[in-house]
Amino acid sequence: MVRYLITFSYDGYGFNGFQRQDDKRTIQKELEDALTKINNNEKVEVVASGRTDKGVHALNQKAHFDLDIKITEEKLKMALNSNLPKDIYVKEVTKVNDDFHARYMVEAKEYVYLINIGEYNPLERNYIYQYNKKLDVVAMERALKYLEGEHNFKSFSPSDNTNEDNYVRTISQTTLTRDFKNPNLITITFLGSGFLRHMIRTMIGTLIQVGEGKKNPEDIIEIIKKEDRKAAGFTCPPEGLYLKNVFY
Amino acid sequence: MVRYLITFSYDGYGFNGFQRQDDKRTIQKELEDALTKINNNEKVEVVASGRTDKGVHALNQKAHFDLDIKITEEKLKMALNSNLPKDIYVKEVTKVNDDFHARYMVEAKEYVYLINIGEYNPLERNYIYQYNKKLDVVAMERALKYLEGEHNFKSFSPSDNTNEDNYVRTISQTTLTRDFKNPNLITITFLGSGFLRHMIRTMIGTLIQVGEGKKNPEDIIEIIKKEDRKAAGFTCPPEGLYLKNVFY
Repeated sequence: MVRYLITFSYDGYGFNGFQRQDDKRTIQKELEDALTKINNNEKVEVVASGRTDKGVHALNQKAHFDLDIKITEEKLKMALNSNLPKDIYVKEVTKVNDDFHARYMVEAKEYVYLINIGEYNPLERNYIYQYNKKLDVVAMERALKYLEGEHNFKSFSPSDNTNEDNYVRTISQTTLTRDFKNPNLITITFLGSGFLRHMIRTMIGTLIQVGEGKKNPEDIIEIIKKEDRKAAGFTCPPEGLYLKNVFY
Repeated sequence: MVRYLITFSYDGYGFNGFQRQDDKRTIQKELEDALTKINNNEKVEVVASGRTDKGVHALNQKAHFDLDIKITEEKLKMALNSNLPKDIYVKEVTKVNDDFHARYMVEAKEYVYLINIGEYNPLERNYIYQYNKKLDVVAMERALKYLEGEHNFKSFSPSDNTNEDNYVRTISQTTLTRDFKNPNLITITFLGSGFLRHMIRTMIGTLIQVGEGKKNPEDIIEIIKKEDRKAAGFTCPPEGLYLKNVFY
């Protein structure tokens, strides 16, 4: 039995999220089906760094699994990519120690959210969130900085998300940049210990309200304190969100 | 009756090409259906600068049509976009003279073809042609220059394309560039009086054979002379091709 760590990317558009749900098309299902074929039809379980919601993309998602068969890392990468659909791609395969765990050992994750406030481009509709209003990005950047640090982020998670025993997370770094060539393309990044379900998309929705002048940057402090979903802004759609990196 | 010229973009992936084909989803059908609704259910015929094949994208396609109703250009743009599906977008609406014709009056068209020879990215699979081999882009650029000028391009059109009475076209300008940040992304552009069906995709397939060393740049001269489809290279897939501009 050898444990492997894989780095992979996917287009979230065509999937019902990451996690296996019987007959629905999910990323976990496609990976496990491909690996089971490679593993002489012995079932393989894939453990990812965490789930991504329906429609969310990944540039460098990570997962581990165990295989009985003897195969080199390079051959396994090739076998995986030839058995996977075109919207998932395995970039790297590495043998790891038996005690490596893709979820428990995560030190940090980096997410990126893309917003276009310029002219709508139908070719990017599944990859960038289109927002047809002017935004004060200077105010948004100031608000963003109030999200940094260790906080209870309950206000940014759905009110029905009651299966968390701890809403405290640490956001160690954030950036907001406008594209050099196309200033209407806004890129917001978050580096943190971990993120609650919908947390990034709700932080983005709240930042957009700041950008529109509906909230002040300093309101973020109060929103965090309230620990109440109703205090934060709307939840942005998944198409602008990318899991960019997972660090161990 | 007022004649309008529209500039529009579309994601070719979800369409069976441009031209109306009864029940199939085509760009012409979606435009005409939207316009018919706006025109109090009186049928409207859309005349584009030309067709694009199944899967080919457009950044600035142009078309004309006539409407009986009174409506401003800005309101018509809004009405069109709210009646069109998300993979077509009207960028501009302009009133034109009654004798303007979107197809007959075309002076030049610009097309772009994108090739990625780096790592496969599942998020770009419908927007860039993935080619998993090294290519000699210097040789490709030399070959490209032999395509410029007025030539009979029969070698680059399908052998069953017998409904053309004239295979002579003029390519006035071409460029081949590698992306500054990502040199594995190759962009090839063609500016010309008009292009035969599959012509650009077959020119690209021929250029790729030059890039692989299977043909010499100078072979292009002979390929053009032969006026025979068998002399040219393969026809590249549509996902890398964009109609970028139409000039009148």
